[in-house]
Amino acid sequence: MDEIQQYMREKAEQVEEKLGEYVKEAPGVPKSLKEAMTYSLMAGGKRLRPTLVLATAEALGGEEAKALPFACAVEMIHTYSLIHDDLPSMDNDDYRRGRLTNHKVYGEAMAILAGDALLTKAFGVMAEGALDAGLPGETALNLIREGAVRAGAEGMVGGQVKDIQGENGKLELEHLQDIHRSKTGDLITFSVRMGALVANATENQLITLTGYAERLGLAFQIQDDVLDVVGDREKLGKPVGSDEEKNKATYPALLGLAASRDWVRNLVEEAKELVRSEPGIRGARLLAIADYLVSRES
Amino acid sequence: MDEIQQYMREKAEQVEEKLGEYVKEAPGVPKSLKEAMTYSLMAGGKRLRPTLVLATAEALGGEEAKALPFACAVEMIHTYSLIHDDLPSMDNDDYRRGRLTNHKVYGEAMAILAGDALLTKAFGVMAEGALDAGLPGETALNLIREGAVRAGAEGMVGGQVKDIQGENGKLELEHLQDIHRSKTGDLITFSVRMGALVANATENQLITLTGYAERLGLAFQIQDDVLDVVGDREKLGKPVGSDEEKNKATYPALLGLAASRDWVRNLVEEAKELVRSEPGIRGARLLAIADYLVSRES
Repeated sequence: MDEIQQYMREKAEQVEEKLGEYVKEAPGVPKSLKEAMTYSLMAGGKRLRPTLVLATAEALGGEEAKALPFACAVEMIHTYSLIHDDLPSMDNDDYRRGRLTNHKVYGEAMAILAGDALLTKAFGVMAEGALDAGLPGETALNLIREGAVRAGAEGMVGGQVKDIQGENGKLELEHLQDIHRSKTGDLITFSVRMGALVANATENQLITLTGYAERLGLAFQIQDDVLDVVGDREKLGKPVGSDEEKNKATYPALLGLAASRDWVRNLVEEAKELVRSEPGIRGARLLAIADYLVSRES
Repeated sequence: MDEIQQYMREKAEQVEEKLGEYVKEAPGVPKSLKEAMTYSLMAGGKRLRPTLVLATAEALGGEEAKALPFACAVEMIHTYSLIHDDLPSMDNDDYRRGRLTNHKVYGEAMAILAGDALLTKAFGVMAEGALDAGLPGETALNLIREGAVRAGAEGMVGGQVKDIQGENGKLELEHLQDIHRSKTGDLITFSVRMGALVANATENQLITLTGYAERLGLAFQIQDDVLDVVGDREKLGKPVGSDEEKNKATYPALLGLAASRDWVRNLVEEAKELVRSEPGIRGARLLAIADYLVSRES
């Protein structure tokens, strides 16, 4: 395992430990609800979003302990979105990362409620994290407001609506990109911006890092589509070719495999160049994360 | 219509106008999602929670304009909870307030997402409202944190889990009260506390008003159960006796109708006495709202 994978593994473990505490600590929560929340929170995965929060804060010399609650908050939002997306009335998936989906284990009602609870908790964790970190009130409130926009109707939830409505229909490239910008890009961008804001980024640093995150988010999505065509079932934890089977619009389907891969490489180069160009960012980890995204197999 | 009903009608209209703006203004939201969100937000109802935010702020001499976003936020949370509660996998209700439920009109997927979007938006509206009102950062962040607790796994969502698990089973009185304290009480208490915090309540005033709200919330729930037995179908907008049909545990079923009604009256008297006893609260409206809750027919 090379250095960046080691780093990501460490950050994932830190985040998982803290996530476990958040759910375990909460008083008066029905046992079954705690179980359902924990099941999906602890389902593993790369923990890309929280790692980006932590790595960005670190790149600006911020304290990791102050960034950790925000890392957990974004993972809670991501996890809730997966639980709801998997529901029978949405993507109707029985498996995710090789395990039964939440509603297959706990039933639909509990899956919906576990998702609702995680989403709600995320905002509480952000507010608490801001208080504990002593963030300026205005910074913290703007961050929460931005989180609501990027995770909500204008962002991730809106993206899921567009995605559902686009399924089984022909999608133009621009439309596909618009879906992904909101469905997955917004939360990735929010992760990087949270890390930056917690570490007192300058306005210029924030703009540069936002550009990095936007390119990373798009590259990540295209690479996901590429892996769905060429990936290894074992490593992916889901059947290869499942997008094609669902007649989903994907980048390889629209552009071909070679062009999709070139695009990923270009986006990653641009993202890295942005980070390198900005003074005051110790960006080695951010560069390595970008490289990892191209080389990954799952 | 007497004065308090007139007042509640006016506040409801103010809240509805502002709610409409919040959804309409949001850029980049898919049209279908806006429609589904608006359908349930504009489904009428007493708007008890937002009215409590506004009336409490007013009782402490706070500015109504500063309280209005928080009033809208709590109504968004309430509305999302109704949409999700009505889903086929939960209460499976086709009608609410005499209109088709969200999922009957827009389908299950859209209903889930419209609920998710409203919940998310609520936190954005609180953060924005706090910034616009110039609330101290610490007050605002504590308020958001409390909202997440009261609306989340520890509060409303947890209450819905307990409620689902209690259906078709015998429930003791204490357990029933615990369900309602979290399922409906927490959000009513949060409404009053938000109004108080926005208006710079003293610590004593906050404690007193919390006591008022807790009694009001319980009285409201018992009265709901009473109306389900003795109410008028037209006024209720749902079939009378629907709780009994679902074999739901209710206060009249556990205590009898007369004792349930007495309890409501006692709780309302206690709530009113608290408000009267606290210096610096111009509580006429809060008293009238409590009285209205006993006399209402829907």
